[in-house]
Amino acid sequence: MLKLENDPNGIYYLGPKGSFSDEASQVLNISGNRIPIGTITDVFSKVNETNGIGVVPIENSLEGPVGETLDNLFRYDNIFVNYEIILKIRLVLASKGKEPKRVYSHPHALQEARNYLIRSKINNIIPVESTSKAAELASKDLEAAAICSEYAAKLYNLDVLEKDIQDSENYTRFLVISKEKRLSGAKTMLLFTVEDKPGALYKVLEKFYTSNINITMIYSRPLRTLPWHYYFFLEYQGDISSNDELFRELSTVTKDLKVKGSYTTLYKAF
Amino acid sequence: MLKLENDPNGIYYLGPKGSFSDEASQVLNISGNRIPIGTITDVFSKVNETNGIGVVPIENSLEGPVGETLDNLFRYDNIFVNYEIILKIRLVLASKGKEPKRVYSHPHALQEARNYLIRSKINNIIPVESTSKAAELASKDLEAAAICSEYAAKLYNLDVLEKDIQDSENYTRFLVISKEKRLSGAKTMLLFTVEDKPGALYKVLEKFYTSNINITMIYSRPLRTLPWHYYFFLEYQGDISSNDELFRELSTVTKDLKVKGSYTTLYKAF
Repeated sequence: MLKLENDPNGIYYLGPKGSFSDEASQVLNISGNRIPIGTITDVFSKVNETNGIGVVPIENSLEGPVGETLDNLFRYDNIFVNYEIILKIRLVLASKGKEPKRVYSHPHALQEARNYLIRSKINNIIPVESTSKAAELASKDLEAAAICSEYAAKLYNLDVLEKDIQDSENYTRFLVISKEKRLSGAKTMLLFTVEDKPGALYKVLEKFYTSNINITMIYSRPLRTLPWHYYFFLEYQGDISSNDELFRELSTVTKDLKVKGSYTTLYKAF
Repeated sequence: MLKLENDPNGIYYLGPKGSFSDEASQVLNISGNRIPIGTITDVFSKVNETNGIGVVPIENSLEGPVGETLDNLFRYDNIFVNYEIILKIRLVLASKGKEPKRVYSHPHALQEARNYLIRSKINNIIPVESTSKAAELASKDLEAAAICSEYAAKLYNLDVLEKDIQDSENYTRFLVISKEKRLSGAKTMLLFTVEDKPGALYKVLEKFYTSNINITMIYSRPLRTLPWHYYFFLEYQGDISSNDELFRELSTVTKDLKVKGSYTTLYKAF
């Protein structure tokens, strides 16, 4: 199914080990050196320097887009999108002991499991930098538990005391990036700027409407080089190879059009 | 100039004291009880419960929109925008001593002053939760300095050792919110959702284009109630009172149209 059967050049994911990006990278089911990287910007830099692939988050269904990923896609003209991977964010309470007295987790995860924490009457809550760090800390302390993914719990040999303790339905989309541009797939990603005049974005959307192409996502982001100017991030249903006419039209109404390739969606079984 | 000459019901800003929202609230130059509040969501909740006004950040020229502010504007139908305030983010190095051995600041500010820190050869850098917390810590330690605003340095009686140490031009926009809806001003803010079908956003933008109205900003944000569905945040040049026809047209192409009022832009002298 996947072209990327193995990647001797490295699979760089936003770490640490046990992170949701690590879990997403497992969906690819390829062999190769898996290397956790500290920041999203450094994942892009590794993919740029090597011929490896990267796995980074791009959007969360509650929190919105990940600006650092969008900005790096805009910055690196030689890096493209090969897959998107959708993970449901399921949280567990996990521990080495039976009756934890304190709970470690990332502030976002603590927020997501707020109602569970109130019901369970665990009052000693300690925010840490990631859910996998929480799992690591709980693995060294019989009186502590972590709120983390089932994957991280397994990685750190913790017992799962309670599953699905998140309050809301929450998904994160990840991208698999590399220097290979693909022309076919279910969706295509574009980044572009427009002239600073009335109707500029309208004229871009018009091209999609008249071509009967469905836009699945549009975000705007500040151009870091010029205050109050923006670039747009757009995804549509369809691929590059079947839309030559669209690209000719788009080049007349955009500036700085960056085509990030076509790709397929992979789901982790929910 | 301002209607809000004083507000005995309270001026609630995103704290702590000495924060950039505190500094923005001074631009209003009104009297009243100034109360720092811990989170943006709690500022909205205070404005909802009282008849006071709130001051919160909405957009940074490098980092983009503040999701928590947009989401609360969408949530509270009875809270409107009365002013926007634009502050240039200028950073200083400030201390009680002459030769600081360590520097406190918020991670964003440390990032912004990165080149200065390299040049100045200060290696002991300690990230803390806010630039005003950094100023407070530096006020108690002769060997420490803070990277903070000049305003926070003054508030904590620190000497400014170096001005304008930020690497890039960076501005933040703040909103003054209250339960009073205004119909005239330079700009107007709208939030809306659209039907889930091709061309839905295009048809909204068409109304602005045919009315010759300039859109100054458009962002999309996830609807927290339904994964992969979005609402839009839009600002345009012009006010509500002079665009009756536009609103009649918009009501035919949007769902859930929330008109947040018209407002004036105030600048802090840069």
